[in-house]
Amino acid sequence: MTESVYKIIELVGSSEKSWEDAMKNLIDEASKTLRDLRIAEVVEMDVKIDKNKIVLYRVRARLSFKYEGK
Amino acid sequence: MTESVYKIIELVGSSEKSWEDAMKNLIDEASKTLRDLRIAEVVEMDVKIDKNKIVLYRVRARLSFKYEGK
Amino acid sequence: MTESVYKIIELVGSSEKSWEDAMKNLIDEASKTLRDLRIAEVVEMDVKIDKNKIVLYRVRARLSFKYEGK
Amino acid sequence: MTESVYKIIELVGSSEKSWEDAMKNLIDEASKTLRDLRIAEVVEMDVKIDKNKIVLYRVRARLSFKYEGK
Amino acid sequence: MTESVYKIIELVGSSEKSWEDAMKNLIDEASKTLRDLRIAEVVEMDVKIDKNKIVLYRVRARLSFKYEGK
Amino acid sequence: MTESVYKIIELVGSSEKSWEDAMKNLIDEASKTLRDLRIAEVVEMDVKIDKNKIVLYRVRARLSFKYEGK
Amino acid sequence: MTESVYKIIELVGSSEKSWEDAMKNLIDEASKTLRDLRIAEVVEMDVKIDKNKIVLYRVRARLSFKYEGK
Amino acid sequence: MTESVYKIIELVGSSEKSWEDAMKNLIDEASKTLRDLRIAEVVEMDVKIDKNKIVLYRVRARLSFKYEGK
Amino acid sequence: MTESVYKIIELVGSSEKSWEDAMKNLIDEASKTLRDLRIAEVVEMDVKIDKNKIVLYRVRARLSFKYEGK
Amino acid sequence: MTESVYKIIELVGSSEKSWEDAMKNLIDEASKTLRDLRIAEVVEMDVKIDKNKIVLYRVRARLSFKYEGK
Amino acid sequence: MTESVYKIIELVGSSEKSWEDAMKNLIDEASKTLRDLRIAEVVEMDVKIDKNKIVLYRVRARLSFKYEGK
Amino acid sequence: MTESVYKIIELVGSSEKSWEDAMKNLIDEASKTLRDLRIAEVVEMDVKIDKNKIVLYRVRARLSFKYEGK
Repeated sequence: MTESVYKIIELVGSSEKSWEDAMKNLIDEASKTLRDLRIAEVVEMDVKIDKNKIVLYRVRARLSFKYEGK
Repeated sequence: MTESVYKIIELVGSSEKSWEDAMKNLIDEASKTLRDLRIAEVVEMDVKIDKNKIVLYRVRARLSFKYEGK
Repeated sequence: MTESVYKIIELVGSSEKSWEDAMKNLIDEASKTLRDLRIAEVVEMDVKIDKNKIVLYRVRARLSFKYEGK
Repeated sequence: MTESVYKIIELVGSSEKSWEDAMKNLIDEASKTLRDLRIAEVVEMDVKIDKNKIVLYRVRARLSFKYEGK
Repeated sequence: MTESVYKIIELVGSSEKSWEDAMKNLIDEASKTLRDLRIAEVVEMDVKIDKNKIVLYRVRARLSFKYEGK
Repeated sequence: MTESVYKIIELVGSSEKSWEDAMKNLIDEASKTLRDLRIAEVVEMDVKIDKNKIVLYRVRARLSFKYEGK
Repeated sequence: MTESVYKIIELVGSSEKSWEDAMKNLIDEASKTLRDLRIAEVVEMDVKIDKNKIVLYRVRARLSFKYEGK
Repeated sequence: MTESVYKIIELVGSSEKSWEDAMKNLIDEASKTLRDLRIAEVVEMDVKIDKNKIVLYRVRARLSFKYEGK
Repeated sequence: MTESVYKIIELVGSSEKSWEDAMKNLIDEASKTLRDLRIAEVVEMDVKIDKNKIVLYRVRARLSFKYEGK
Repeated sequence: MTESVYKIIELVGSSEKSWEDAMKNLIDEASKTLRDLRIAEVVEMDVKIDKNKIVLYRVRARLSFKYEGK
Repeated sequence: MTESVYKIIELVGSSEKSWEDAMKNLIDEASKTLRDLRIAEVVEMDVKIDKNKIVLYRVRARLSFKYEGK
Repeated sequence: MTESVYKIIELVGSSEKSWEDAMKNLIDEASKTLRDLRIAEVVEMDVKIDKNKIVLYRVRARLSFKYEGK
């Protein structure tokens, strides 16, 4: 087994449609620079409200990826 | 900046369709009496089950609104 | 299934006899204004002490009831 | 009121579509052997990612059912 | 010292009288199939309410016992 | 000892000067409608930032007061 | 108001009868050396079991008292 | 991706040598009846002491495995 | 490096002015009997209120110091 | 509403004067490289002590800012 | 069963070799003044680093022992 | 005292031998790019299992280092 070191970061994704879609947007953005993502754990969920309507579903998630210096 | 005081309350919303819809129902009801809602944070999620089927998605959420006495 | 919205509140009840009795006093008082209470969850328990004797058993509990505006 | 004893277990359900569907799959499987399920509480949610796409929504939930020995 | 493996489970006991009695009912039931129980830790306590009266005291407890396969 | 029932609520106070002052503003506002406040516990502290400067210190606090119906 | 310093300690009391009695035993013992106790908060509750019977109710509680050096 | 349902259980392993060895003993025992174990997360660690010496290192761990009925 | 053993204790300090001053009072008192204090971590903060005014800022803090028997 | 992705980081600021000033120093430093900071939540507070005096107030805070790759 | 009162304290032990050895050092020191120790629970673990090397393994543990006054 | 700002990050290290060695590997890797590391706190520990054997010990740890922009 490899003995690599991983780094944990937390990102917040959002979507007008659903928490699933907010997570998808988060992964899409993270994938641009982080390689080999395998699991994203939900840490917090909320919604933004404007004029009595939900305008954004937001999800805060924890991701791990191979660490290659700061 | 204004130095207003806000109050935090917790409500439980429910829906036959999804947790997003449960949150929407919660906001709809809260908006009838609370003004200027901006964020609702998820505190807990569960489902009610009847005859082996999910009959309600429920979400407990924390809301803050301008405090004007009890 | 109905899609009602519920509100969660926390009350503290007390009794000279026991934590069970403190919960009973809490429910008695809450029932005067809240309808259809079904579950009360214990959040915290403590005792007040005076002259080396326990003078009050106290229980903090979380109650939910049908939400009808603030 | 009956004084039955209940057991709490934790299961993880998954779905390619949504966390709601992951919970549904979890309940479907649990219902094969456990009777009279009434509530499932979400304990944790995450997603599995492959090639920068979400491939599974997963939900860990707590279920209670009537206890009849180990 | 023996190097046995133990399993942890959570049960919910209930009683019309008190939380102590709810724990007693829980232990009585668990003892029918689990051997050598020594400690049960309280995880949660609540009450069920009907018509403004407490009808059941409930206690969720964590038990450990010698593990002999699933 | 009296066996009164108390209610717990959470308020958020803010100030341009300090967290102590935010708590003072919170108490000032709460005192207009709640009688006999004795302790306010800090639950959360944060700051609002605008143009790289702190513009508000905020404190979320838990207060208890004598319960007299909803 | 005085600006005294208080110390927090945790004790475990036990009783063959009930958790209330375990707390009473804890306070009785603590009162022998600590002056001016006013509140004891429950931190944990469990039971010891022997031959399928509850033999001790135990309560872990947090006490504060005036600090006068180690 | 498969949409299997997994079950989470907690076991306590022990060893006279180290926490690593306690985990190994736990896995050895669990593997006799559970198939396809992949991760075990540490939940709690402690030691048993006798005559001022550590006699057992113990580790409580959470395991998941494919769920096939109770 | 030395392999000393340290003890952790919790103290509550208070002040009429601020939480910083409450911490200062706590350290002043602790320093009379404990040597070589280096860090004090805030565990809880609250205020005492009398006649709608804050009369004491209180801070509960965790301190470690070299252990030399009970 | 925009569906941007945000990153959460934790920084520790310190000051010889107060926790408010420690937070100000933290924001000053963070603002040099992070744009559009709006909220910083306190995660932990402590003090460094030297020769029985508080020499630094420290605050650990959580900040979010627009995510633009690692 | 005896109805003794126990006290809980937290100590930090350290070692240049391992966390197991840090716990052993902690128990050795505690045993000089505390009688009849039976369990020590790990509360926190960390390492001290100097010039990029681990120089100390540290373990914070919770111990209980028979209470005989302050 | 200097009033520097520090950043907190979380890394996961692993080893085929022990959790101590996993921490060592984590520190070795982090030291390549981060200067002046002094403490690493354990946040989580687990093991990876393959064919009923532990193949990796993993430790998630929190590190702080001097902050010099993103």
